[in-house]
Amino acid sequence: MKFNNINVHISPLAKIGKNVKIGDNTIIYDNVEIGDDSIVCNNCVIGEPLNSYYSNDNYTNPITVIGKNSLIRSHTIIYAGSRFGHHFMTGHTVIIREETIMGAHCSVGTLCDIEGYVTFGNYCRLHSYVNIGQHSKLGNFVFVYPYVNFTNDPHPPSTICVGPTIGDFSQIAAHAVLLPGAQVGKNCLVGVNTTVVNDVPDGSVVSGNPGKIVGRTAWIRSKEEGKENTSYYPWIYNFDRGMPWKGIGYDKWVEDGSKI
Amino acid sequence: MKFNNINVHISPLAKIGKNVKIGDNTIIYDNVEIGDDSIVCNNCVIGEPLNSYYSNDNYTNPITVIGKNSLIRSHTIIYAGSRFGHHFMTGHTVIIREETIMGAHCSVGTLCDIEGYVTFGNYCRLHSYVNIGQHSKLGNFVFVYPYVNFTNDPHPPSTICVGPTIGDFSQIAAHAVLLPGAQVGKNCLVGVNTTVVNDVPDGSVVSGNPGKIVGRTAWIRSKEEGKENTSYYPWIYNFDRGMPWKGIGYDKWVEDGSKI
Amino acid sequence: MKFNNINVHISPLAKIGKNVKIGDNTIIYDNVEIGDDSIVCNNCVIGEPLNSYYSNDNYTNPITVIGKNSLIRSHTIIYAGSRFGHHFMTGHTVIIREETIMGAHCSVGTLCDIEGYVTFGNYCRLHSYVNIGQHSKLGNFVFVYPYVNFTNDPHPPSTICVGPTIGDFSQIAAHAVLLPGAQVGKNCLVGVNTTVVNDVPDGSVVSGNPGKIVGRTAWIRSKEEGKENTSYYPWIYNFDRGMPWKGIGYDKWVEDGSKI
Repeated sequence: MKFNNINVHISPLAKIGKNVKIGDNTIIYDNVEIGDDSIVCNNCVIGEPLNSYYSNDNYTNPITVIGKNSLIRSHTIIYAGSRFGHHFMTGHTVIIREETIMGAHCSVGTLCDIEGYVTFGNYCRLHSYVNIGQHSKLGNFVFVYPYVNFTNDPHPPSTICVGPTIGDFSQIAAHAVLLPGAQVGKNCLVGVNTTVVNDVPDGSVVSGNPGKIVGRTAWIRSKEEGKENTSYYPWIYNFDRGMPWKGIGYDKWVEDGSKI
Repeated sequence: MKFNNINVHISPLAKIGKNVKIGDNTIIYDNVEIGDDSIVCNNCVIGEPLNSYYSNDNYTNPITVIGKNSLIRSHTIIYAGSRFGHHFMTGHTVIIREETIMGAHCSVGTLCDIEGYVTFGNYCRLHSYVNIGQHSKLGNFVFVYPYVNFTNDPHPPSTICVGPTIGDFSQIAAHAVLLPGAQVGKNCLVGVNTTVVNDVPDGSVVSGNPGKIVGRTAWIRSKEEGKENTSYYPWIYNFDRGMPWKGIGYDKWVEDGSKI
Repeated sequence: MKFNNINVHISPLAKIGKNVKIGDNTIIYDNVEIGDDSIVCNNCVIGEPLNSYYSNDNYTNPITVIGKNSLIRSHTIIYAGSRFGHHFMTGHTVIIREETIMGAHCSVGTLCDIEGYVTFGNYCRLHSYVNIGQHSKLGNFVFVYPYVNFTNDPHPPSTICVGPTIGDFSQIAAHAVLLPGAQVGKNCLVGVNTTVVNDVPDGSVVSGNPGKIVGRTAWIRSKEEGKENTSYYPWIYNFDRGMPWKGIGYDKWVEDGSKI
C-alpha cells in the first residue's frame, strides 16, 4: 500500500528524479524537485503552498528541492520554498515551513515543527518533538533531542525575531530552551531541562535555569565498557554511526577532504 | 489539490456557508456549521463524533460551530460540540476535543492538543505543541508559547479536575507548566520553564520551579531599536500585528468601543 | 464516514477478528492480527513495515498483535512487530515503533511517540505528547503525563542505550525527564518539571533539577471533599475509574485474584 500509485497527485510542474517512489495519498505541488532514488511515503504533502495562495489569484509556488537519496516518512508536510541536501530524512508527521535550508544528510524526527527561515549545516539530526523557531541557525553535526525549543522573541509578543545559533558538533539535550539570540559554541553540551540565556563558549557544559556553565565537555568520562577512564567528548572520536568518518575515524576523514 | 472536491464527505446535516472552500479527503460530520468565506484544508475532520458514537446506536452529533472567515489547516481534527468565533485559525495536525468554546480571532498552532471543556476569550493565540487540559479558562489576548501545559489534577490520578485561569493580555512563555487551579492575573508574564504553583497578581513576572514572583512586567525594558529606555509592557502599546487596534493604537480602539 | 469501507486496504495476510470495524483510508499490512470487537478508526496504519522494507526485496513483515476490544483512534501509526493486550486504546496521531510490548488495558494518548523496544505492564496510561525512548520498562498501573521524556543515552551521541524503569502504580507528572537507567520504584510520584537523575525508592516524591527526594507520597493530603485529613496515596485506595477494582476496592480485587 505504499507504492501502488493510488490517489497520488503530482503537479505537471514538479520535477521527479529517476527511481523515485511516491506513496499513496501523497501530493506533490508545483515547482517541487525531488532527487533521484528518493522515497516519499504515503499521505505526505510536498511543496505546500504559502499563505498567499489563499488570497492571491496569481500565486506562483516557490521552488522546493529535496536532494537525492532522501526518505520522507508518512504524513510529513513540507512547505514550498525549502531546500534540503541529499540523504535528507524525516520521521512521521513532520511539519516544515518555507525558507528552511538544510545541508546534506540532515534528519528531522517524528512530530517535529520547523517554523521556516532557518539554516542547518550538514548532518544535523533532530529527534522527536523539536521546535525550531524562525531565524535559528545550526552548524554541522548538531544533534537536538526531544522537546527542545529554539525561541526568537525577547519580550513576547513583539516584532523582534532573533533566533539562536549553534556551533558544529554541539548537542542540545531534551527539554532545553534556547532564548532568543543565544550563541552556543562548538562542541558544547546543553544539559537536560536547561534554559540557555547567555552565550556558551566552545566545549562548555551548560545546565540549569537560568543556564550556567558547569564544566567542560572534556571532563565527562565515558560510560562505554573498557573506556571508563577516558573523556567521551569530543564525541567525534567515539561515535561514528551514520557519520561520514565511519570506519576510518574523524581525523582520517578530515585528512581525506571531509567529503560528505 | 486542495479544492478539487476529491474524496470530500460532507454530511447532509451540515450547514456550509457561502464561499466556503473544503479540501480533499476532508470529512464534515453531522450538525457542523461553517461560517461564510471559511477555508477548511485537506485531510481535516470537523465534528468528529464523541466516544458514545461507538456504543450508542441512537447517537446524535452535538452542534459544532466554526465562525466565518476561518482557516483550518490540514490534518486538523475538531470534535463535535465545540464552538469558535469568526476568524478562527489553526495550524496543521491540531486536535481539539468537545466543549471547547473560543471567542473571535483565536488561533491554535500546529500540533496543539486542546482537551475540551475549556473557554477562551477573543484573540487568544496558541503557538505549537500547547496542551490545554480540561476546565482551563483563558481571558482575551492571552498568548501561549510552545510546550506549555495547563494541568488540572492536584494529586494524580484523581477525579478532581480544576484548570488554571489566565487573565487578559498575559503571556505564558515556552515550557511553562500551570498547576491545577493556578490563577494568573492580567498583563502577567510567565517565564520560560516556569512551574506556576501559586496565584500570580496582575502585572507580575513569575519564574522558576516552584515559580516565584521575580518582578513587574513594567520593569522590562524594550529591546526595540530606539526604545531601549522605555518599558515594553503593557505590550498592547508596543505591538499591533493582527490586533484590532492596528494602526490606531490601543486607547483609540477602546475609545471607539473595542470592536472585534 | 468512519466505517463505510472507502479506500480501506487490508492485506490478505492480515487476520481480522469478529466484529472488527475499520475506518476509511486505513491500511492494515501483512501479518497483522486484530482481536475481536476492536475498532480501528480512519486514516490509521497498522503494521507499518520496518526500515529494511525499503531495501530488502525479500522483506517479510513481523507479526503485529492488537488485542480484542481495542480502540485505535484516527491517524495512528503502529509499526509491525509490536504486541498489545486486550482493551488497548490510543488517542489521535500516535506513533508506535516496532518491538513495543504492552499488557492489557494500556492507553497511549494523542500525539505520543513510542520509539519501540519497550515493555509495559497492564493498565499503563500515557497522556498526550509522551516520548518513550527505546529500552524503557514500565510496570503495572503506571500513569505518565504530558511531555514526559524517557531518555536512554548517557552522553549523546553514543551507542549506549539504557532506558529508565518504573515500578507499579508510580505517577510521572508533566514535563519530567527520566535520565538513562533511572530506576523509579513502586508508588512513587515524580513531580512536574523534575529531572530524575538517581534511583527513587518506593513511595517517594521526587522533585527539582536535579531531582531530589523531597518526601513520601504518604505525606500528601487528599484534596477531595471530606477527606482533607487523610493521605491521598497510595492512590489505589482513592481512585478506581477504569480500574479493575472499580466498585469492589483494591484489596477485594487482589483477594479475588487480581483479574484483569
